[in-house]
Amino acid sequence: MVGGATPVFDEVIISTELMNEIISLDEKAGILTCLAGCVLQNLDEYLAERNLIFPLDLGAKGSCQIGGNVSTNAGGLRVLKYGNLHGNVLGLEAVQANGVVLDFLTCHKKDNTGYHLKHLFIGSEGTLGVVTKVAVQCKLRPKSLHVAFLGLQSFDKVLQTFYKAKQDMDEILTAFEVIDAPSMDLVTSKLELESPIGDYPFYVLIETTGSNEEHDEEKVNQFLESCLKKHHILNGTVTGEISKARGIWQLREKIPEAFKYDGYVFMYDISLPLDHYYKLVDDMREYMGDKSHRVYGFGHIGDGNIHLQISVKEFSPEMKSFIEPYIFHQTKKYNGSISAEHGMGFLKAKYLHMMKTPETINLMKNVKQMMDPNGILNPYKVLV
Amino acid sequence: MVGGATPVFDEVIISTELMNEIISLDEKAGILTCLAGCVLQNLDEYLAERNLIFPLDLGAKGSCQIGGNVSTNAGGLRVLKYGNLHGNVLGLEAVQANGVVLDFLTCHKKDNTGYHLKHLFIGSEGTLGVVTKVAVQCKLRPKSLHVAFLGLQSFDKVLQTFYKAKQDMDEILTAFEVIDAPSMDLVTSKLELESPIGDYPFYVLIETTGSNEEHDEEKVNQFLESCLKKHHILNGTVTGEISKARGIWQLREKIPEAFKYDGYVFMYDISLPLDHYYKLVDDMREYMGDKSHRVYGFGHIGDGNIHLQISVKEFSPEMKSFIEPYIFHQTKKYNGSISAEHGMGFLKAKYLHMMKTPETINLMKNVKQMMDPNGILNPYKVLV
Repeated sequence: MVGGATPVFDEVIISTELMNEIISLDEKAGILTCLAGCVLQNLDEYLAERNLIFPLDLGAKGSCQIGGNVSTNAGGLRVLKYGNLHGNVLGLEAVQANGVVLDFLTCHKKDNTGYHLKHLFIGSEGTLGVVTKVAVQCKLRPKSLHVAFLGLQSFDKVLQTFYKAKQDMDEILTAFEVIDAPSMDLVTSKLELESPIGDYPFYVLIETTGSNEEHDEEKVNQFLESCLKKHHILNGTVTGEISKARGIWQLREKIPEAFKYDGYVFMYDISLPLDHYYKLVDDMREYMGDKSHRVYGFGHIGDGNIHLQISVKEFSPEMKSFIEPYIFHQTKKYNGSISAEHGMGFLKAKYLHMMKTPETINLMKNVKQMMDPNGILNPYKVLV
Repeated sequence: MVGGATPVFDEVIISTELMNEIISLDEKAGILTCLAGCVLQNLDEYLAERNLIFPLDLGAKGSCQIGGNVSTNAGGLRVLKYGNLHGNVLGLEAVQANGVVLDFLTCHKKDNTGYHLKHLFIGSEGTLGVVTKVAVQCKLRPKSLHVAFLGLQSFDKVLQTFYKAKQDMDEILTAFEVIDAPSMDLVTSKLELESPIGDYPFYVLIETTGSNEEHDEEKVNQFLESCLKKHHILNGTVTGEISKARGIWQLREKIPEAFKYDGYVFMYDISLPLDHYYKLVDDMREYMGDKSHRVYGFGHIGDGNIHLQISVKEFSPEMKSFIEPYIFHQTKKYNGSISAEHGMGFLKAKYLHMMKTPETINLMKNVKQMMDPNGILNPYKVLV
């Protein structure tokens, strides 16, 4: 409820907890159709037994539901290789505010019969309709996996290493993640994890997946040798063993968990052109001075998406008002997006005007008015 | 004009011929921004000089414009590897019917700030607005290319070969095309082209692209040896030389050109589940009997997309009425789409009800009414 106002409409509360059935899987085509309440990890485990992989992977995979993933256009860890949900969702079913069910459950890679309206429901955060079923183009599960963990001197070196990785092994590059020293320090000191390579100003986690173990290993090793020779990287380790690879991934995936040990943390999820990707972290450190405990930067370089976190002693509205206008102003200055994958929700809705032109916001309002004239779907979110 | 009715509105005629400028290219990120009138082949040649590749490739690349490609959600030859335009168009600019310009020209892989309205303009065939600028995620130009041309005994063998190709070389598979004997016979007899492997009931063209010449060659050769051993294929040739590869591609790309030598040809562009992909061609041969000259099937197996053509002595409305209800009925029976990549346009608009539920058509009409209340944008198309 905003400002104590009493809404004149009823709010719709929908639980998808029991909507957790897989409807069908075309194993040869890799097309999975399921109800919206299926948990992402369960889907991926089901697919793994059938030699397939879900194109989406998130730290929250153990609890997030596919309907929510689609409604928020979740990004995560495999966008670099498999692209986003607008490309991978073949079809969906959604219920409109008036109760009418929309059946977009086609399963074709190519289908140009009429407007592509399913996209209205991907990323609109449940404000235009409730996604109830999803059909997703899954991929063949790769036969080979390698994870490298590297130590680097500077963010410039991180970028050089990224461009080199694309040159040398573009088609097997699944993830290219960066972790800065404060983030690494936090996750290792608070969660009993250990850096396998010692301490460096920056760390990079690279995952490759492919169809030929020997070829992939050769590509990764040649790439690492070349990076060492060119002084892009200072140190590194690489593994093709699943258990060791999982251990390395923990260092990246558990960072959000470690934040609960560092006071109150303001969390931002920003897209930036790579030339300004880490500049924003430096800007925030300078701006915060001794007002913050630490400023952390980590995220998906391969997608231009950084998670920037600022820890302070405790939450205060004044601190929020001090941080937010500046971080979003700088983001806009660098042609970034103030929400890469987390959406606008309730907290960022008031900043929508920074990202969209008045004409676009006007069209958004017209679409919302057409689809949900009484504003009963996920009220107070996205558009305010 | 339909049925001689006089429209009460003015039609908007827009020429994009002079809108052919490239606005910017971020070479490292691979993001190309350009005006809508740029010709696809010119864009790809511009990118080639900078070690990049456009994610879209079509037979019509020498004349089609990128604004039209986006408006029709063009598919073409590289969807198997790079996915469709909903995944690759990062941003666009469109002009609404009321003259208002919508600026969705962001260039982020991840941007969840508000509704993803750019998708309304991808594939709606210019009926909701005119696309004037486009920002596209381009890819690194592969260093290695191989093209194989295979002869096979049956369509079952074609499918077995496709599944084997995915297993053995998923990440480098760029195109998997099928040509049936009548199509091959036409293109070789009418256009002075020659099959490099003799005559077979079916032909498959496979293209792979990757970052490592040696690895790709080994993958392709191992795959072909295995296919020969398993009797999936009867014969085959493979080349890593660009000029020879182009020669092989001519056999596939010039098929549409050869149809002008076979009377009047009814052309269909269908998506089908692979188990029924060629069944529809057999159905049509049986249904047509001696009413047709020949029934041809060729297309993009990798995308479930077949081009089915029926040649007759000359056009007659009776023949059209004889063919169309049946071919679309069979397509629907097999859970296919009556328009994979060519759109509904003027000719197929009346069949929209076969593909979309009344609820979806109703929402399409509401969207059209909201975006273009006077129906001045590309009238008589898609919705009638």
